Parts: sequence; C-alpha cells; structure tokens
Amino acid sequence: MRLNLHSFRVRYAETDQMGVVYHGNYAQYLEMGRVEWLRALGITYRSMEENGIMLPVISLQLHYKKSALYDDLLTVETQLKKTPKVKIEFDYKIYNEKGELLVVANTVLAFMDKSTQKPIVCPDYILEKLED
Amino acid sequence: MRLNLHSFRVRYAETDQMGVVYHGNYAQYLEMGRVEWLRALGITYRSMEENGIMLPVISLQLHYKKSALYDDLLTVETQLKKTPKVKIEFDYKIYNEKGELLVVANTVLAFMDKSTQKPIVCPDYILEKLED
Amino acid sequence: MRLNLHSFRVRYAETDQMGVVYHGNYAQYLEMGRVEWLRALGITYRSMEENGIMLPVISLQLHYKKSALYDDLLTVETQLKKTPKVKIEFDYKIYNEKGELLVVANTVLAFMDKSTQKPIVCPDYILEKLED
Amino acid sequence: MRLNLHSFRVRYAETDQMGVVYHGNYAQYLEMGRVEWLRALGITYRSMEENGIMLPVISLQLHYKKSALYDDLLTVETQLKKTPKVKIEFDYKIYNEKGELLVVANTVLAFMDKSTQKPIVCPDYILEKLED
Repeated sequence: MRLNLHSFRVRYAETDQMGVVYHGNYAQYLEMGRVEWLRALGITYRSMEENGIMLPVISLQLHYKKSALYDDLLTVETQLKKTPKVKIEFDYKIYNEKGELLVVANTVLAFMDKSTQKPIVCPDYILEKLED
Repeated sequence: MRLNLHSFRVRYAETDQMGVVYHGNYAQYLEMGRVEWLRALGITYRSMEENGIMLPVISLQLHYKKSALYDDLLTVETQLKKTPKVKIEFDYKIYNEKGELLVVANTVLAFMDKSTQKPIVCPDYILEKLED
Repeated sequence: MRLNLHSFRVRYAETDQMGVVYHGNYAQYLEMGRVEWLRALGITYRSMEENGIMLPVISLQLHYKKSALYDDLLTVETQLKKTPKVKIEFDYKIYNEKGELLVVANTVLAFMDKSTQKPIVCPDYILEKLED
Repeated sequence: MRLNLHSFRVRYAETDQMGVVYHGNYAQYLEMGRVEWLRALGITYRSMEENGIMLPVISLQLHYKKSALYDDLLTVETQLKKTPKVKIEFDYKIYNEKGELLVVANTVLAFMDKSTQKPIVCPDYILEKLED
C-alpha cells in the first residue's frame, strides 16, 4: 500500500515541562502525515472539504517509544492500511533525524457528506488514484 | 465599567520546556475571560454566533510580568474599556493564587455579520444589558 | 476501582473548522481527568513531579462516538483499571451535558524516576491511598 | 536590519469554527519566524538554551488584517528592530500565497541566564554574527 514521508521541525510550543513533545501534539503530526499522503496522490483535503466531503477521525491509537525534543527534525511515515470503503485507515511511524522510532500510530477516519452529515463510501476519484 | 473574574487551573499541556506556561497560550485565557464576562451579562457568545454575529479579534497585546506554573490556579480579570460601537475593547489582568500579577493584556474585537462578513455595530440587546 | 468526575467547558480555541472539538484536543481532557482523579485521592501530580517522579504517557487510545461543540459543558469520567505497578492504566468516558457519550478512551502511563530517567514501581504512598 | 523569510502550511488543528486560523496560534508562527531568523544567522535557539541562555517573551503585539485559511502556504517575514542589549525586539509580517498581508506583529524578548534566572546582556557571539 502507498506510503508517504513528510518531515517537519518540532516547535517550542509543542514541548511541555518534561522537556519533550507533549504526547497530545502527535495527533497533529499524524494529520500532517495523511494530508501530505493525499497531496502526493494528487488530492488536497482542502478541496475535498470544499466539495462537500469531510473525514472526521473516529479512532486514534498512539504508542510512544521514545521522546521527541524541541527543534528535532521528525519524519512521519504514513501508510494506507487497506482499500478504503466507508472508512479509511492509516498506519504511521514517526522517526527522528537519527532514524530512531519514536511513535507507532493508527487512525481510522470516516467519509462523511458535509451537507447531510451522513456516512458515505470513499469517492471514486480517490479509488481511481489508488489504482494508478 | 463592568468587570468579571474567572478562575481556572493551568494544564500540563500548556507548559513548555522552560517549565512555565507557553506565552502563546494566554490568548486562550483572555478568551475565557471575555466569554465569562459576557455570560455574567446574561449573553453567551455561542448564542451570539448562532444568531449570526461573529466577534473576530483584530488586535491583541500581552505584557508578561511573571510566569505561571503548571497546576497554578489563575484568575483572569476582564474589564470592558468603553461602550462598544463597531468594536469592543477589553483590558485584562491575570493573577496567580498568591495575588501576583502575571500578565496585563488588551484585545480589540470587531462585530461582524456572519452571512455578509461585513462589520456591524454592537447589537442593541448588548448595549441595553450594559446599561442595566 | 476508584472513579472521578471532572467537568469543564469547551474553549473556542479547541474547535476546528468542522465546527466541533478538534480530535487531538481530547488528550488534554483525559489529562485533566486523571490529574483530578489523583487530587481526589489527596495527591497532586505537581507535587509528585517536584518529588522526582514523572508519569509519561506510553499509550493513548481514543474512540470518537459523537462530537463536542463549543461551550459544551463536558464531564470526563476517569477510572483506574487495575492496581498500578510500574505502569498505571486509566479508562475514560467523556459525556456532554445531555448525558450523551462522546468519547471512550484509555491511557497507560509509566512511573519514571526524574533524575535517572528509569522506570520505577508505583510509590507506596499512592498504593496506600488506593487501599483506603 | 537583517530579515528572514520562512514558509509553512496552516494545519487543520490550527483553524477554529470561524473557518480561519485561531488568532492565538499566530504566536507559534512568530516563534518559528524568529527561530529561523536565528538559524539563518548560524545560531540555533536549541543550542543557546543548552548553553544556559533563555529568551522568554516579555511582550507580544498582534494586529490582524485578514484571515489565514486551512492549508494556506503562509510566509512569516522576521526583522530585527535594533541591536539587542538586554532585550531583543523583532517585527513580523505574515503573508499568504497571494501576497496579501494578514498580520503585523512585534515581540520583545529578554536574555536570561537559565541557572540564575536573572537578565543578562545579549551574548557577544550573537552581536558578532550581526556585524558580519
């Protein structure tokens, strides 16, 4: 399944008084990962939403192996788990610059019609891009 | 001019690796202050927005005197600066439990019609409550 | 096992452009839940850290059932899962004011010596409070 | 005075239910601006802190002209205002991809000795880099 890498630096605001990245902030890192995964496929999440499709997160799992520090250059590796239907599932790994594995994560998101707020199946134009 | 006090505890997530509250997080504390100022007047910001009025912040000034620590019980003192017209201006002071002054701040917000995204004057029902 | 309830209002800053609480912000709500669970036991996490014990989160699981809205008065129900040893595990449920279940969550944290950065067993004074 | 440009994308988490970037999040954007301004000078803020110097923000001013949207590619322009002594002052402008000016801001930070928590003058190695 398709895999995407995205790198970014840890912001000072993202640390807490333990001197490491606050554990809750990784949710944003995963989000950047899947947004860039989509962009690499030729789709922006922004245009999806403008076209009436939302992708709320319905489950989030994070396992913390090692801490990330301020100014670390992290890389999130995002991988689609299986062909999406009404849900889309991603696995993630986050590494630091030394290649140490910091976090293993998984999210499940649901395709939703913005106007009706009802679940829908994954749009064909996404499925077609996945087959390319 | 009317003044309101609102107290709350500092969250761990709000600290940074300096061991104090991250300076950018005070914007949220000011927001809680003015929302509770409005509630004390008998108005919820939520109902204002549901009725088509938004209040975007157009300027924010913060002066940091002393740091806030994790789990500190802080009090934000919110005071209306003058009778609102197209803008509404608040002064704030934030204190810790010992009564030490931590932050002095000011915000200016603009009344805006949600559907037209144009500036409007302060609604009469707010002005009337201010005269009570 | 001991259970604690803690209520708080959703901040404007915690919403995203879907018009609901951003999913990543629930990590902070869970943290408030377990901090208040500890306080109800007669222990502050702040004093634990000052006495050289840290409690980093090593896993986080969240299942989102229903969205929370701006200004909602939420209640987080925090329950210890079992007697802590080197780890401490909590189950959480988050409800809105109508009593609707919004989120089911679980966290595992590790007791750690701040100076050596090594795992330790749960301090006796916590175990004793649990037996009371 | 030296000027630095730094570009980054708006994260979904940074929006609020007005559908724009939450005003308080710009503090993080300014921080990225000055950190990259320092890096362009050959200094990392991380190494400064590791060498015992902290730079707490003592004042922050933000004027909001126009909103930033989700996924916008923003550029923060950071400029040193004058030769630093015990304080260092920066002016900022934030633009979107169309070149529209969104925010004008200013911060003052103080040089502080991490161990004594007392103010100090700007280290010589920074002043020397500024003269290059």
